[in-house]
Amino acid sequence: MVRLLKSTLLLMLWPVLATAQSSVKMEVSQDAGNEAYTIWSPGETVKVKVWLSEKGRPMYSMDYKNRAVIKPSGLGLQLARDKHASKGFRETDLIEGFATEGYKTSSEDDTWQPVWGETANIRNHYNELAVNLLQRDTKRHITLRFRVYDEGMGLRYEFPQQDSLNYFLIKEERTQFAMAGDHTAWWIPGDYDTEEYPTVTSRLSEIRGLMDKSIVWGNASQTPFSPTGVQTSLQMKSADGLYINLHEAACVNYATMHLNLDDKNLVFESWLTPDATGLKGCMQTPCNTPWRTVLVSDDAREMLSSNLILNLNEPCALDDTSWIHPTKYCGVWWEMIVGKSTWHYTDQFPSVQLDNIDWKAVKPNTTHGANNEKVRRYIDFAAKNGLDQVLVEGWNVGWEDWACMWKWDVFDFVTPYPDFDLEALNEYAHSKGVKLMMHHETSSSTINYERHLEEAYALMNKYGYDAVKTGYVGDIIPRGDYHYSQSMNNHYLYCVKEAAKHHVMVNAHEASRPTGLCRTYPNLVGNESARGTEYEAFQGSNPDHTVILPFTRLQGGPMDYTPGIFETQLSTWSDNKHFVHTTLCGQLALYVTMYSPLQMAADLPENYERFDDALQFIRDVAVDWSDSRYLEAEPGDYITAARKAKGTDNWFVGGKCDENGHLAVVKLDFLDKGRKYECALYADADDAHFADNPKAYKITKKTVKKGDVVRVKEAPGGGFAMSLIAK
Amino acid sequence: MVRLLKSTLLLMLWPVLATAQSSVKMEVSQDAGNEAYTIWSPGETVKVKVWLSEKGRPMYSMDYKNRAVIKPSGLGLQLARDKHASKGFRETDLIEGFATEGYKTSSEDDTWQPVWGETANIRNHYNELAVNLLQRDTKRHITLRFRVYDEGMGLRYEFPQQDSLNYFLIKEERTQFAMAGDHTAWWIPGDYDTEEYPTVTSRLSEIRGLMDKSIVWGNASQTPFSPTGVQTSLQMKSADGLYINLHEAACVNYATMHLNLDDKNLVFESWLTPDATGLKGCMQTPCNTPWRTVLVSDDAREMLSSNLILNLNEPCALDDTSWIHPTKYCGVWWEMIVGKSTWHYTDQFPSVQLDNIDWKAVKPNTTHGANNEKVRRYIDFAAKNGLDQVLVEGWNVGWEDWACMWKWDVFDFVTPYPDFDLEALNEYAHSKGVKLMMHHETSSSTINYERHLEEAYALMNKYGYDAVKTGYVGDIIPRGDYHYSQSMNNHYLYCVKEAAKHHVMVNAHEASRPTGLCRTYPNLVGNESARGTEYEAFQGSNPDHTVILPFTRLQGGPMDYTPGIFETQLSTWSDNKHFVHTTLCGQLALYVTMYSPLQMAADLPENYERFDDALQFIRDVAVDWSDSRYLEAEPGDYITAARKAKGTDNWFVGGKCDENGHLAVVKLDFLDKGRKYECALYADADDAHFADNPKAYKITKKTVKKGDVVRVKEAPGGGFAMSLIAK
Repeated sequence: MVRLLKSTLLLMLWPVLATAQSSVKMEVSQDAGNEAYTIWSPGETVKVKVWLSEKGRPMYSMDYKNRAVIKPSGLGLQLARDKHASKGFRETDLIEGFATEGYKTSSEDDTWQPVWGETANIRNHYNELAVNLLQRDTKRHITLRFRVYDEGMGLRYEFPQQDSLNYFLIKEERTQFAMAGDHTAWWIPGDYDTEEYPTVTSRLSEIRGLMDKSIVWGNASQTPFSPTGVQTSLQMKSADGLYINLHEAACVNYATMHLNLDDKNLVFESWLTPDATGLKGCMQTPCNTPWRTVLVSDDAREMLSSNLILNLNEPCALDDTSWIHPTKYCGVWWEMIVGKSTWHYTDQFPSVQLDNIDWKAVKPNTTHGANNEKVRRYIDFAAKNGLDQVLVEGWNVGWEDWACMWKWDVFDFVTPYPDFDLEALNEYAHSKGVKLMMHHETSSSTINYERHLEEAYALMNKYGYDAVKTGYVGDIIPRGDYHYSQSMNNHYLYCVKEAAKHHVMVNAHEASRPTGLCRTYPNLVGNESARGTEYEAFQGSNPDHTVILPFTRLQGGPMDYTPGIFETQLSTWSDNKHFVHTTLCGQLALYVTMYSPLQMAADLPENYERFDDALQFIRDVAVDWSDSRYLEAEPGDYITAARKAKGTDNWFVGGKCDENGHLAVVKLDFLDKGRKYECALYADADDAHFADNPKAYKITKKTVKKGDVVRVKEAPGGGFAMSLIAK
Repeated sequence: MVRLLKSTLLLMLWPVLATAQSSVKMEVSQDAGNEAYTIWSPGETVKVKVWLSEKGRPMYSMDYKNRAVIKPSGLGLQLARDKHASKGFRETDLIEGFATEGYKTSSEDDTWQPVWGETANIRNHYNELAVNLLQRDTKRHITLRFRVYDEGMGLRYEFPQQDSLNYFLIKEERTQFAMAGDHTAWWIPGDYDTEEYPTVTSRLSEIRGLMDKSIVWGNASQTPFSPTGVQTSLQMKSADGLYINLHEAACVNYATMHLNLDDKNLVFESWLTPDATGLKGCMQTPCNTPWRTVLVSDDAREMLSSNLILNLNEPCALDDTSWIHPTKYCGVWWEMIVGKSTWHYTDQFPSVQLDNIDWKAVKPNTTHGANNEKVRRYIDFAAKNGLDQVLVEGWNVGWEDWACMWKWDVFDFVTPYPDFDLEALNEYAHSKGVKLMMHHETSSSTINYERHLEEAYALMNKYGYDAVKTGYVGDIIPRGDYHYSQSMNNHYLYCVKEAAKHHVMVNAHEASRPTGLCRTYPNLVGNESARGTEYEAFQGSNPDHTVILPFTRLQGGPMDYTPGIFETQLSTWSDNKHFVHTTLCGQLALYVTMYSPLQMAADLPENYERFDDALQFIRDVAVDWSDSRYLEAEPGDYITAARKAKGTDNWFVGGKCDENGHLAVVKLDFLDKGRKYECALYADADDAHFADNPKAYKITKKTVKKGDVVRVKEAPGGGFAMSLIAK
C-alpha cells in the first residue's frame, strides 16, 4: 500500500490509488444473488461487511478484533410525497429493491495540520469501500461509502445527479445500528431544541424506564420526542469491555441525527430533526448525507484520542487562517448567571420595542452588569493575568424581554446600553493588550439576526473585535422550526462563513452539536451544545459530568465549557444557594481534560484574587497544543490527559474524576529524554471534597524528568493540574 | 368644525381638535348597562354605532343614507395558548367580558400630496370615535377606533402597553361584517398563497356552490381553505343599488385578512393567514391591527375615486422621495410567458447548483430570451417610443430549475448568464436615455433573497438600475409558511424599506395584496397580487376582468397589470393557442382605466411596429396625474375614466367594457373653459370583437372643447382611448 504524507501529493496520485485495490484487504462474496463485500481497516482491527437483504435492502455489520460491534443492520431513507411530486419529486423510499452494480475500494494515509487542535499533526488513515446500488424499479442510483479506520468507521449515502433522482424529501433516514449487547450507555434524552441535559448512565434496556425523569425541565426550549430517543454522540461500553461511540461527521445541509432505540432488539435507528412541517430534509442531487460514525476500541483512551470525526470532514475551506487563534478569556457573565447582576438595563417597561425607546432617557435598574466600571475591572484583570480577551454579555439593548416572547426584532447587535461606552472600552482594552469579545444573543430569532449580521460584523471590524459568542436561547423564529433542523444547521454554517469573510471567530451556544466542521471552518472555535458550567448555578451538575463530556459531546468539536469557578459556594457572594460540584483543583483540571482552543476563566476577578497561587495555573496553561496524550480514562470515572503547549517544550497535565475520587498514576513517559522539568502540582488536599471541602488544595513544586511517576490523589469530585516547564 | 388644509398645521392644533367634540355629530345612549355610541361622517351620509352585547362583546353597525350596510356585528380576537404561556402570554380571548370606560371623538380634514397618484391632492376628511374597553376579569384594556368618512369607514383594534397585556398570540381575529342582504359579489376564492384567480360574479348565497369550480388549479402555489372563504377587497352590490366594498388598510406586522362567510346568516368574519404552526399572529403591545374598511356608495364611480384606504395609512415615511418616479416600460418578458423563448439558458443538466457550474462552459439552449442582441432591440424600441425603462427577466443564473423544488439557493441576484453583458447593456441603454429595470425572482426562497439583498441592491446602484420587479412564485421557504402570513408581510415590507435606503423602487409580484402602504412607502410603486395579463397566455381571462379589478384589487394600490398586447392572437408568432380576451383598443384603454404609476407596453417590438398608429397612444399617455374623474362605472360592465397628466393641461380618457360592449358617453366637462383641445380617439371598429375581430380599430382626430360630448361604441371585450392635448 502506498503511504503518502501530504494531501497535495495524494491528490496527484489519487487515480492510481483508487485503482490500486489490491492494497486494501477486502473480500467479495455472493449473497442471495448479489455481491457482498467485506473490507478491513488498515491494521485489520475493524471489519465491515456490506450486502443486500433478500428484499434488496442494503445491510452492513461491523466487527472489532472479531467481536461484533454492529450486528446486521439496515440502511436506507424513507422519502416523503410532496404536493409538487408531479414536478420531479419521487416519493418511493430508498430502502428496498436495490441491486449491486459494482464497487470500488481505495485507501488513504495522509497527515494534515489543523489550524488549532490537540496535536500539531493529524493522521488520516483508512480503507474505503464504495458500493454502487441501483434501485431497479425506479432506475435510481445511490452509492454507499464506508471509510474504515482502525478505531471505527464512517458510512454515508451519496446521491449522484441523475434524471431519475433529482430532488427528494426525506421523511426519515433509516440507518440502523444493531447493538451486540445490552451495553452500558452514557446518554441524554433526544430533543429537537436542547442538548443541555444531565447525562444518564444506564443499560440500553433501562433507557425507556428512565426517560421521564431524565427529561429535566427548565431549558428555554425543549422538544423531547420519543421514550427511547437519545442524542449523539452516544458513548457505550459492552459487558466485555468494548467502548463504542455513535455520532456523525460533517453534518452540512442536513438535519442533526438522533438515535431511537428499538429496546426489544437493541437496535438504534436514525431519527432526524424535522422542520416546521414535520419533514426532515429537502435534497437536490448531487448530494450526500453526513457520515454516520462508529468509534470502537478496547481502550477507553482511544475514544478520546481518535480523530476519526475530524478526518471525515472536508479540509479547511479558508485560504487565510492567520487571523484565527486560540484564546483565553474572562468575562462579565458568571455574575449574571448566578443572579447577582443583570443583562438588562432597566425595569421601567413591561416590554420594549427597540425603535420606540430613548435609552438615554430611561431609568437604569442599577443591577446592569455590563457597565463601564465593571468592564474596566475585567479588562484590568485580564491584562494582569495574561488573558487575551474579555467577553461582555448584556452590552447591547434589548435584554429587557429578550427570550420566548415570539418577538422578531429583539436585538440589533450594534446599539450599546448607555452605560457601556463601546469605543472607550475597546480603546482601554487595546491599550492594555486585551481585546473585548463580542456577544450576539439572537434569542433564536434567526431572521432578525441574519438581517443585522453584516452590520454587526462591520461594527466588530471597526472596533477590533475578532471573536463572537453567539446564543440561540428560546424557540426558533421562524415559528415551528427547531434548533437542529436542516434549515437551522444551514443558518449556523451561514453565520460561520459570513464571519470568516470578516475574520471573525465564532463560538455558538445552543446551536447544533458539532460534527467536526471546525476542520473545514476553523473560525468555528467553539460551541456549547451541552450542559455547561452555568448549570452549576441553576440545578447543579453531577460530579461525573466532565468525565463524560469528553467521550460524548467533545467528539464533534470543542466546547466552551467555561471552567475555572474557584468560589464553588455561590452563596458566599450572591443569593444563589447552589454550589459547583467539583473541587477547586477539579476546576483547574478542566483546562487540560476538556480540550478547547477557547478557554474561559469564568469566575469573578475578586474570587480569583483570593486564590492567586491557584490562579497561576490558569495564567500558565496553554490553549493550543502540539501533542496530546490520554494517560488514563474511563467514561464517567476519570480522565487524565497530558498536552504539550504548541511552540514550546512545556507540558500540562490534568486529571479529573467523579464523585468517587481517583488515584492518578501519571507516568512522565512523554517528556524529552535527558531534560529536566519544573513541575508545579495543584492537587486536592487530603480532606478535600466537592461538597464539603472543595477549596482545600496544595501546591507542590519539584523537578522531574522522563520516566518519573507522579501519583496524585483526586478527591471526590476533584482533580489535579500540573505544569511541566522545560528547563 | 375647524377645517384645515395642511397636515403640519393640523398637528399643531391636534390637542385642540381632539377635545372639540362638539364639532363631530355623535350620540351617547345607554344599552344594557353600558354606553353605546353613534357617530356620523362629516357629511352625515355614513352612521356607525358601537356598543356592547349582553355578554360584553363589542358590537358595531353601519348605515349609509339610512340604509343598513353592516348589520349588528361582533368584534374581538380569539387568542392562542402558547407553551410559554406562563412567561407572560395570556390566552383568554379578547372577545367578551368587556365594559366601556370612556370614549373620545375627533375629526380631521386634511389635504396631502402623494408622491405619485391619481390626483395631485388627496383630502382626508373623517370623524373619529375611539372607544376604550376594559375586560374586567383580566384587567386588560383595548381601544376600538373608528374613522367615519362620507363614503365608508375604517375600524381597528388598538392594544396599549400594559402589564396585563404584554404579548399575545392570535388564534383568529373575529371581526364580523353582517350583510344586509344577499348581495351580488365579485369574489375570488380565499387562498393563503395565490390571488391569481378569475373573479366570480354571484350572489353571496351562491358562493358555496360555486367554490369548487372557482378554484382553478394551475398556480405554482395554492392553498384554498374554506368553501365560503373569499379574498378582499371584496366588491358587492345590494339589490337596491348600494355598492359595498370590504378590504383592509395599513396591514403592517399582521397577517393578511380573508373573509369567511356564514352563508346562513350572510355574515362575513375575518380569517387571517396562518404561519407554519397554524397560528395567525404574534403581538407585542403597544400595537394595533390593520384597519378593516367598508366602502359604501350609491354611485359606483365613488368606489373608484375613494381614497379612504390611502387615507387610513400613515403619511410618507421617507424623507427624500425625489428619486421616485412613475415609469413607462417595455421588457423581455411576454415572449417567455407565451412560450416562445425561455428564462433559462441551458438544458444541459437535470438540475443546477449555483456553486458548481461554470456558466461559460455550459451548452446554451438557443432559446434564452435575455440575450444581448434581444435586449438591445428592446432598448432601441424603448428609446424610439419614449419608454423609460426595459425590464429583462431571465438575465441571471438559476432559472434552470427555479421553482417548487424546495431549493434554498436558487438565485444569487447578481450573476448574469454569459450572453447578458450587464455592464455593456446598461451603458448602451443609458446612452439612449433608457434604463434597464432589474428583476429579482425569489422563487419564494425568502431567506436566500434576504441573504443576497444588500449585494443585489448594491449591484443595482453600481449600474444605475432604480427599479426592481420582484417575484414570489412557488411555495414559501421557510417551509410551512404562506405568502400572506404576518412573517411574509414583514418580509415584503423589509425589502421595500431596504430598497428605499438604496433609492430603489419596488414592484413586487405574488406578494400580499396591497393595503395602501404605498402612501407610507411610495417606492412601492406596484404589485401584482391578482390575475395579470400573463393569464391571457395561460388560460385566458374573462372580458370583464379589467372592469372588475379597479373595484377590487386596485383598492389597495396600483397593479402592474402589464397591458398593451396588440397582437392578441398569440398563435400568429408562437405555438401558444390562446388569445387575449380584449380588442386592441381595449388594451389601450387600460393605460387610463387601470391606474398605476408603472405601466408596461408588454407586447413585442415587432408586434407594435405593425400598429404604429395605435402605438402613438402608448407613446403619448402619461403615467402620473394631477386629476382623475370616473365618468362612468359599473362593476363587471364598464369603466370610463379621464385623467389629467401631471404638469400639463392634457387629458387622457379610457373606456373599457365587458363581453357585452358599451356605448360610452364622454362628457368633456372637465376641460378648461374656453380652451381648445386636439382630440385623438382610438376606437374599436364597428365590427370589432375581442374573439373574432380584435384588431379592427379606427383613429379619428378633431378639435374639442369643454362641454362637448363624445359618444364611443366599445365592441364586446373592447374599449377606447382618447388623448386631449391642450392647444
